[in-house]
Amino acid sequence: MIKIAVDANGGDYGVNTTVSGSMLAIQKYKDLEIDLYGDEDQIKPLLTDSTRIHIHHTKDTISMGEKDPVRAIRHQKEASLCLAMKACKEEQADACVTSGPTQCVVVGAHLLVRRLPQMERVALCPFVPNLDGHPRLLLDVGANVELKKEHLGELAIFASVVSKEILGVKEPKVGLLNIGSEPGKGRENEKEAFAYLSEVKSIHFYGNVEPTEMVNCPCDVVVTDGFTGNICLKAIEGTAKSMGVMLSQEIKSSFGGKIGYLFMRKNLKRFKKRMSTKEVGGAMLFGLSKIVVKAHGNSDPVTYGNAICLAYDLVKANIIQKVVDQLPENKE
Amino acid sequence: MIKIAVDANGGDYGVNTTVSGSMLAIQKYKDLEIDLYGDEDQIKPLLTDSTRIHIHHTKDTISMGEKDPVRAIRHQKEASLCLAMKACKEEQADACVTSGPTQCVVVGAHLLVRRLPQMERVALCPFVPNLDGHPRLLLDVGANVELKKEHLGELAIFASVVSKEILGVKEPKVGLLNIGSEPGKGRENEKEAFAYLSEVKSIHFYGNVEPTEMVNCPCDVVVTDGFTGNICLKAIEGTAKSMGVMLSQEIKSSFGGKIGYLFMRKNLKRFKKRMSTKEVGGAMLFGLSKIVVKAHGNSDPVTYGNAICLAYDLVKANIIQKVVDQLPENKE
Repeated sequence: MIKIAVDANGGDYGVNTTVSGSMLAIQKYKDLEIDLYGDEDQIKPLLTDSTRIHIHHTKDTISMGEKDPVRAIRHQKEASLCLAMKACKEEQADACVTSGPTQCVVVGAHLLVRRLPQMERVALCPFVPNLDGHPRLLLDVGANVELKKEHLGELAIFASVVSKEILGVKEPKVGLLNIGSEPGKGRENEKEAFAYLSEVKSIHFYGNVEPTEMVNCPCDVVVTDGFTGNICLKAIEGTAKSMGVMLSQEIKSSFGGKIGYLFMRKNLKRFKKRMSTKEVGGAMLFGLSKIVVKAHGNSDPVTYGNAICLAYDLVKANIIQKVVDQLPENKE
Repeated sequence: MIKIAVDANGGDYGVNTTVSGSMLAIQKYKDLEIDLYGDEDQIKPLLTDSTRIHIHHTKDTISMGEKDPVRAIRHQKEASLCLAMKACKEEQADACVTSGPTQCVVVGAHLLVRRLPQMERVALCPFVPNLDGHPRLLLDVGANVELKKEHLGELAIFASVVSKEILGVKEPKVGLLNIGSEPGKGRENEKEAFAYLSEVKSIHFYGNVEPTEMVNCPCDVVVTDGFTGNICLKAIEGTAKSMGVMLSQEIKSSFGGKIGYLFMRKNLKRFKKRMSTKEVGGAMLFGLSKIVVKAHGNSDPVTYGNAICLAYDLVKANIIQKVVDQLPENKE
């Protein structure tokens, strides 16, 4: 049995998403058990099938607009997010899934789940949809605004293991996000990181990757600091969203467009699905002693269920032990 | 008469683009004169209409793959880019247009055209297409990998003048590119810049802008350092391009899609045009004592012609004098 602790009160829609999402996940994996940390009064009427799902009652929630993550995590000890993470730390669960506010999740992960002793930094890592249909890993996208070359090195090792075990990439290539493809491009940080990553033996370093290539990427893993990664990810998300709006405006702008739409409705739906991050379900937190998956705040039940399944897959693949096995070699 | 010096040998296609582009620009403005710096033997057969176009012969070109911009600018004194810039500096032309390699253009601008004495940094500023059809100014996108708050302040003033005079925005709002909308987000740089920009009297500071909003932007001008701006711009460009490919793949994937395309061909063409940066023609270099416009390396004649017209518009609007009038107030 693999047990996942779910922050049921978290996210924009709270139990309305997390409970349905949990029921979907349970259907997919027969050896999955879910502990819902949340408001029993709200959960019970929604939980139409409680097979392998247990409720741990708590009314407290960390607000999506929380401005002081450290204070929230330290003081709201009974918040659903904190209880779910604590359960992880205390070995009552194998992983934790939450759609709570990102910075609170990052702080909670540090204070409640704790880092792997072999890792110096924690990173937030989403899957980036790609032209060839194979998502790529981009990290860090927001856990640390700055990261040194050594941190990028250990995170590259972590992500390479995930790329191999979860995405099935045989020899994951690691790229460094940069403003030019040649060595010597970027700030001092990038120049140092380029030299350092070239020497890390347990990864396959590809070289610099420009953000133009991020959605049609020659690498499987792209590393950068959390500020730059966040800028890049949000630029991709915003452009994809705005282009969808523009396309729909143009189609609706004429009769011919509307007729054409009737013929290519299915094609356009597939197009939308390909660019959507919803299919994947969430971002992972790398560097912790347990698996933590952060689902989008505005996840729907399917997306949330996928986030739980991702956490399951990461536990099942024994990712953390495999990363630990790789790390010492690097530290020699 | 407004005279523009054109680096005719520069860019991926050299004279094949620059000569046709120049002839297009001449047709648009009757008080525009163009000095083509380039290979006379190649230009002459292409120059089917030499009205107000003069050739200044030079065979030397800065290669698009140039790895050492400082060396190139210092040593290739007879290169078309260097001669066109020198003509600007020596008041033989009012502005310079080039589609040469970006870093060589930036270095050439510094060494040959020179900064305004009131400005401490030069920035590269493209127009970013937006959902509402009004392009926005994003800077710096690559002239300086790092920029201090004071530099962002002076560049914000420069860009505000351009937004007002060229894009017709009455009171241009200036945003700071950041990973969150609330004050206090980002690195030390962003926190300091936020506080500083709030105090600059000659601009209208809006606050932080996230890259998700860059293509549907609440501001008219968005400032950031050249590393971050380049990451953001390239992520937008790459996503737009890849989405276009995905859309075309999906449409072609079924008979219904192909039929639908016949009906909405015009709509899809308009969509493509709206996301294209080609319409605008180029990026501007802010902070110099003369107007310099950098056209895309792979410009076609129409795009190149637009870049020349942009340079004309900037000269005609007397941008540099207007910026100088604004700057001292800020420096008090």
